[in-house]
Amino acid sequence: MSIETQLADFAVNSEPSPDALEMMRLSLMDWAVCCIAGREEPLAVILRDKGLSEGGKAEASVIGGDKLPAPRAAMINGAVSHALDYDDTHFAHIGHTSVGVIPAALVVAERVGASFDDFLTACLIGSEGAVRVGVQLGRDHYQVGYHQTATAGAFGACLAALRLLGADQAQAIAGIGLVSSKAAGLKAQFGTMAKPLNAGLAAEAGVEAALWAMAGMTSTEQGLQAFGVTHHGDADAAAFDGLGGTWRMLEVSHKFHACCHGLHAMLEALSEVSVDPADVVSVEITTHPRWMTVCNKPAPHTGLEAKFSYAQTAAMALVGGDTSAIAAFSDMVAQRSDLVALRDVVSVVTAESLTEMQARVRITLRDGAVLDAAHDLEAPMALEARAAKLMRKAQGLVPDADALWQVTDLASLAAILRA
Amino acid sequence: MSIETQLADFAVNSEPSPDALEMMRLSLMDWAVCCIAGREEPLAVILRDKGLSEGGKAEASVIGGDKLPAPRAAMINGAVSHALDYDDTHFAHIGHTSVGVIPAALVVAERVGASFDDFLTACLIGSEGAVRVGVQLGRDHYQVGYHQTATAGAFGACLAALRLLGADQAQAIAGIGLVSSKAAGLKAQFGTMAKPLNAGLAAEAGVEAALWAMAGMTSTEQGLQAFGVTHHGDADAAAFDGLGGTWRMLEVSHKFHACCHGLHAMLEALSEVSVDPADVVSVEITTHPRWMTVCNKPAPHTGLEAKFSYAQTAAMALVGGDTSAIAAFSDMVAQRSDLVALRDVVSVVTAESLTEMQARVRITLRDGAVLDAAHDLEAPMALEARAAKLMRKAQGLVPDADALWQVTDLASLAAILRA
Repeated sequence: MSIETQLADFAVNSEPSPDALEMMRLSLMDWAVCCIAGREEPLAVILRDKGLSEGGKAEASVIGGDKLPAPRAAMINGAVSHALDYDDTHFAHIGHTSVGVIPAALVVAERVGASFDDFLTACLIGSEGAVRVGVQLGRDHYQVGYHQTATAGAFGACLAALRLLGADQAQAIAGIGLVSSKAAGLKAQFGTMAKPLNAGLAAEAGVEAALWAMAGMTSTEQGLQAFGVTHHGDADAAAFDGLGGTWRMLEVSHKFHACCHGLHAMLEALSEVSVDPADVVSVEITTHPRWMTVCNKPAPHTGLEAKFSYAQTAAMALVGGDTSAIAAFSDMVAQRSDLVALRDVVSVVTAESLTEMQARVRITLRDGAVLDAAHDLEAPMALEARAAKLMRKAQGLVPDADALWQVTDLASLAAILRA
Repeated sequence: MSIETQLADFAVNSEPSPDALEMMRLSLMDWAVCCIAGREEPLAVILRDKGLSEGGKAEASVIGGDKLPAPRAAMINGAVSHALDYDDTHFAHIGHTSVGVIPAALVVAERVGASFDDFLTACLIGSEGAVRVGVQLGRDHYQVGYHQTATAGAFGACLAALRLLGADQAQAIAGIGLVSSKAAGLKAQFGTMAKPLNAGLAAEAGVEAALWAMAGMTSTEQGLQAFGVTHHGDADAAAFDGLGGTWRMLEVSHKFHACCHGLHAMLEALSEVSVDPADVVSVEITTHPRWMTVCNKPAPHTGLEAKFSYAQTAAMALVGGDTSAIAAFSDMVAQRSDLVALRDVVSVVTAESLTEMQARVRITLRDGAVLDAAHDLEAPMALEARAAKLMRKAQGLVPDADALWQVTDLASLAAILRA
């Protein structure tokens, strides 16, 4: 069976497990929080203004705006939701699934008047599909310079849209073929507005391709295969193993700190330690070597640089600062004398024996006592514990997290996002 | 100077030569003929219906329709204009330049109210840019499976749009960066509706990227370089030699026969021979070996197959049939007994000494006489001779070619295309 046939069958027929759906619900809420918190970012304003000035059929909600045709709303919402880079991450996918998939599902759900449950199911099918396609494209695809959030994300967005549109098997294969001609996005954009834009382009590509397929557009039936050949895909034969039975979206990671993901394992480890900062003589962080070029700025000068600094964020955590708040990463924080003094006793060493998701911390106190802690971001976290942490994050980021958390219908969710 | 800086400078500052502009005018007219002739093709109907049902600001003309926002109209028009695959080809670019670039220039020209001259200049700058980017990406890019019409075409479309929008150097570099995240399209789509769709996606990507850049979206400044690395580009160092002074659009080829381009050199050679078909004993065609897997069906059964047959089209030419007419390639023609008898005396041989653009024909007559003819599609053709041939093609394809040919203002051209 071709990989397109497998993916199409998955999009059309699969029935998610309850735990996977609950995880998807958490990712959905976290995504909505990112949307609301990011809706006045400069790129959000530019894309929304351009979209609204072009206008069109009011069928799908725009974050912080009005309604627009589904593909256009998907593009804007995808970009806006990734503006803060605070949404979920899937390390096997090598990217962010929600910012490509959920906007596509939302606009199509609104267009067809889907139930909240069908919408959530489509989100999960699209996200799971994005993860599997991301695994199939693999690390070579990422390393050469493609942005999996955008490329694999477009395929996931398309699967979500096809599910909500009630595609049959042939339509789903056509949709996968059509999105293979539209999926795009480069890592060279990191650090520019085009990084979040890539997420929006994924959402839009998925919606367009699905709508075209439903309208009878024809396409290659080997879309993903051709895409892998051209786009340096690994063609991982095991990528689709257990598809429809095993839900790899259960491995998704959520960001609980408004900084580089490479710092999160350390921050979680530090959260298990309680010390008086005045007693700290030294802090030793052990991390995977890959992070050293990513987030080891020893003496950041700005809030942005602080987001990529083990020393600075360790100091912030030790004094009890809230690293989940976006406002915590100000230029002033990078220059605060007590934090500067504390970050100067932090040293960072590496160990190949750790995974990229693991970190250890060792704190030596004035009295000679040594405190050790460690964290593995891949360690299972009970859904309830995760929900509680996400709720706390939401409360720090949006004015009315409780109302958002209680949403169980599409119209209310859409209204909150438009507001 | 980076390739992005060179391209941006070219888009912002270059002034085309009169002969290049005249060639562009011919390509524009030929493109418009393809639009009108193809506007009721199934994919044209699907895309137009979807676009019009989504609606939006009426700022740019849709072929055979109303007006829509510029990016949407660009996508529809690009796809419609390539529906018949009868538009121009640039063999160095390895693709079709007009179907990606002209739709982008047209919608932006309408949006900003440009003069016809400025529109034509933007078409040429975009087309020349598409050719140069196509050369820069090179044959590896094409061979691995990318569709240069779509990929290099998107860059060209963006340059045309940037010119009309009055971009400065920095905005042009941002536009090139943004289009590098959106340019896409696979050769795997050949033979499906997604092949012409790819041309439309190129036009749309170029318009979107240019509008985003003008609105202040930021992007990598090494967009084309990053695109080349990820997309198997050859990085031909000579691709931009003479940019702004030498116009490679003067090498563009136009299709004068409604069939595969591999047959055209033979058909042009046969047009120089005048024989009574009843006298023909044998016909030997000599062509480049690469065409043997492309267009050497010895006994086609359908009109579509006939478009890929040396024997059939040679027979049609020898009896004086009009191979420029789309209707000439009917299933009935493939089965006509006089043509079947004639095609059976045609043999096809190959010679590595020929280029892909050259063919030789040798006709042996009943009385023993031997007629030789040859043609090279790359041989210079005076602009007047080309114009006359394109005019004849237009007269066979559209109801009022004369009116189209005399258009010298944008509003009239747009009105003809909408009709």
